[in-house]
Amino acid sequence: MPDLDAYLDQHQDQFESDLRELLRIPSVSADSNHRADIRRAADWLVAKFRGLKLTCDLVETAGHPIVLAETPHVDGAPTVLVYGHYDVQPPDPLDEWLSPPFEPTERDGNLYARGATDDKGQMLTHVLSVEAWMRTAGALPINVKLLIEGEEEVGSENLDKFIDANRERLGCDVVVISDTSQFADGVPAITYGLRGIAYYELRLRGPKQDLHSGTFGGAVKNPAVALSEMLSALIDADGRVQVPGFYDDVAALSDDERQQFAALPFDEAAFRRQVGVKATFGEAGFTTLERRWARPTFDVHGLTSGYQGEGAKTVLPAKASGKFSFRLVPNQDPKKITAALKTRLKELCPQGIEMELLDFHGAPGVVVPLVSPFMAAASRAIERGFGRAPVYIREGGSIPVVSTFRDLLGVDTLLLGWGRDDDNTHSPNEKFNLADFHRGIRASAHLWQELANHRK
Amino acid sequence: MPDLDAYLDQHQDQFESDLRELLRIPSVSADSNHRADIRRAADWLVAKFRGLKLTCDLVETAGHPIVLAETPHVDGAPTVLVYGHYDVQPPDPLDEWLSPPFEPTERDGNLYARGATDDKGQMLTHVLSVEAWMRTAGALPINVKLLIEGEEEVGSENLDKFIDANRERLGCDVVVISDTSQFADGVPAITYGLRGIAYYELRLRGPKQDLHSGTFGGAVKNPAVALSEMLSALIDADGRVQVPGFYDDVAALSDDERQQFAALPFDEAAFRRQVGVKATFGEAGFTTLERRWARPTFDVHGLTSGYQGEGAKTVLPAKASGKFSFRLVPNQDPKKITAALKTRLKELCPQGIEMELLDFHGAPGVVVPLVSPFMAAASRAIERGFGRAPVYIREGGSIPVVSTFRDLLGVDTLLLGWGRDDDNTHSPNEKFNLADFHRGIRASAHLWQELANHRK
Repeated sequence: MPDLDAYLDQHQDQFESDLRELLRIPSVSADSNHRADIRRAADWLVAKFRGLKLTCDLVETAGHPIVLAETPHVDGAPTVLVYGHYDVQPPDPLDEWLSPPFEPTERDGNLYARGATDDKGQMLTHVLSVEAWMRTAGALPINVKLLIEGEEEVGSENLDKFIDANRERLGCDVVVISDTSQFADGVPAITYGLRGIAYYELRLRGPKQDLHSGTFGGAVKNPAVALSEMLSALIDADGRVQVPGFYDDVAALSDDERQQFAALPFDEAAFRRQVGVKATFGEAGFTTLERRWARPTFDVHGLTSGYQGEGAKTVLPAKASGKFSFRLVPNQDPKKITAALKTRLKELCPQGIEMELLDFHGAPGVVVPLVSPFMAAASRAIERGFGRAPVYIREGGSIPVVSTFRDLLGVDTLLLGWGRDDDNTHSPNEKFNLADFHRGIRASAHLWQELANHRK
Repeated sequence: MPDLDAYLDQHQDQFESDLRELLRIPSVSADSNHRADIRRAADWLVAKFRGLKLTCDLVETAGHPIVLAETPHVDGAPTVLVYGHYDVQPPDPLDEWLSPPFEPTERDGNLYARGATDDKGQMLTHVLSVEAWMRTAGALPINVKLLIEGEEEVGSENLDKFIDANRERLGCDVVVISDTSQFADGVPAITYGLRGIAYYELRLRGPKQDLHSGTFGGAVKNPAVALSEMLSALIDADGRVQVPGFYDDVAALSDDERQQFAALPFDEAAFRRQVGVKATFGEAGFTTLERRWARPTFDVHGLTSGYQGEGAKTVLPAKASGKFSFRLVPNQDPKKITAALKTRLKELCPQGIEMELLDFHGAPGVVVPLVSPFMAAASRAIERGFGRAPVYIREGGSIPVVSTFRDLLGVDTLLLGWGRDDDNTHSPNEKFNLADFHRGIRASAHLWQELANHRK
């Protein structure tokens, strides 16, 4: 192994400069106004890989392009597929950002920008560790394929098609993704379970146009009231989802897992302070970590109806819509959930209201085995990068591609998270700790060596 | 009486030109960006009155100015106070207008523009009938004071103070307001009852900022879910308001009134077609007209929370807010309703959510006596203007100033509506029928004579 550690120490400024460059590109995949920015971000990656003499393709899709790069082939060595995404969430609400979302700004050792941790910063740790190997040793000790897409935040529809059509080209022994968090400050983690998701928009229409609520109120069902009624009927006051059959397939937590969760240094009061609530909320009979990691949930993401401007307007709105999702856990099937939801919403939809349900995207929850040579290698690499061995955790978010890799390539995924819970992913003031950025690059650089030591 | 009818026939084009001029001014009182436009509308009225040699004041207030004009004094004749407003509702949603809201456009005998019927067009009928008398007879047969304000659509707060401070100056025998509708095409009406209103905005706050719904969902109460739960708990599936004590003071409909309503030529199927719904909705045991005119209701006017853009965003929003109101009927006290609502919302507000209730404006419902010399004079004037005697109806909307005039000046109000139910007040494509505009001017011109015939 070349003197990688010295190289990494000496090139921190350059790594940060690369990160800032990529963060300045507002590659918001949900907003078609940013189509050109998305392409600029993909082009940036292609230029980076070609500069390292990796083979690299910019793959066109029906949506945003996929970047696929490969390190020089090493016979007999294992093959790792690194997955990441260069697209980011929309930055709204803009007025809550302390510095502009696409002008990376350092404060207290953190770099603030949309995509800092999700996923540009974390994804780059692997790109830059590959760079370090290429610049020092001229090659890697294993085969690394880097698959970086631009539609993660909008459901990865074209990625799934690409993986399905390119199973051989993407063939690998294990997938590595860094798009999750450490357990706590100074407590690195390997995430072995993820929740799935089923995301919808419910659109209701009442009268053919907005009406005067004085003249018509009391005679016409109000779509905003109907929306409130229908959404609130999907969950009870204790946080239990009220869709028949919803819990039928839920994989129960084992006693072992519950004990493991309970042993983690989780401070409930600190969590409440971090989030800014006086009380936590959720399903009775489960701890906060259990509810976040291993129980299904219902959340409303957006409500839109009627007059939203300043002051009062006495309108009976013609339309109301709500975006919402269920987080799913292993064994729940998004298609089955969607069917049950549709049936329930049709029952709930009152007379005088027409409903339409948009089904955005779905992915099942996933759990990967805790005992494997890959897991062991990752643990040692993380210890080299972060100075201590990781704990094993689950995570409430969804990385739908993990189940795609399992289903289409037949491989498990190592979720090596360099982020933190308070990184404000999907929120204003998203950040990435720069020390974590460099620790992640070092852990990644050592991972290639640790995996090479485990030649098949 | 001079040959008014001939004058009115000859000046229709000029009347319409005046109406178009006033409608071109976007005097939206709820939007502070339109402050200058509001003043332009007031100035237009002042110039009109001064051109007729009326005494006229532009009265500054803490908000938008009030215009007060008086015809030359006639000793011993009754005094009528005409009330109207030159401000209009916001025009959104803009993309549903077939022609721009502030470019008056004629189609099929109707003039389309924001404020066409509510209330610029209806208010102008009285201004122009005064003009007709001044230009033909050089004076009116009675005393007319015209009080035209710019804050009707935002709660008339400064008007109430002005009336309270100027009781003597505004002294009169009866008030006349044209800001309501005829009963049906060709069926003019005098409105003898109005509903009141109590308008609120409920603002909920959960976590201190937007969170990732994957990482945090299941542990934190979602404000958009809480809003849906709280709003939907205020009304049941049959349209009964669920606030304790809400119905305690409701004045019941008399059997006479119910029979009168039932005798009106109301076509339920035509109503459904007009509104564009397959089924009407509301409190069991009451007809559609009863529910619209004489029963209290709950309506949501606007919902705002989280991500409202294109596509999917998995945010757990920090905030959610809803604008809503109750329509009130005689004997219900808005203050008492607000107190009961606050108590109920505090009970409903879940742990982990902070609530704030904004109390926008309130007014009680009102009913005026059907038998009076003023009512008889108005009936005859309407017959002259519209070719048939009016029916007597109630109206679901609120004109809060009617109870102010009763309370502060001790006088009743004649509600002489020239509009139509399908005029789209507060909605896109607001219109005023031009034939109704001219009929209204004629009815108004005759009203001054009819009232003069009833000298005290």
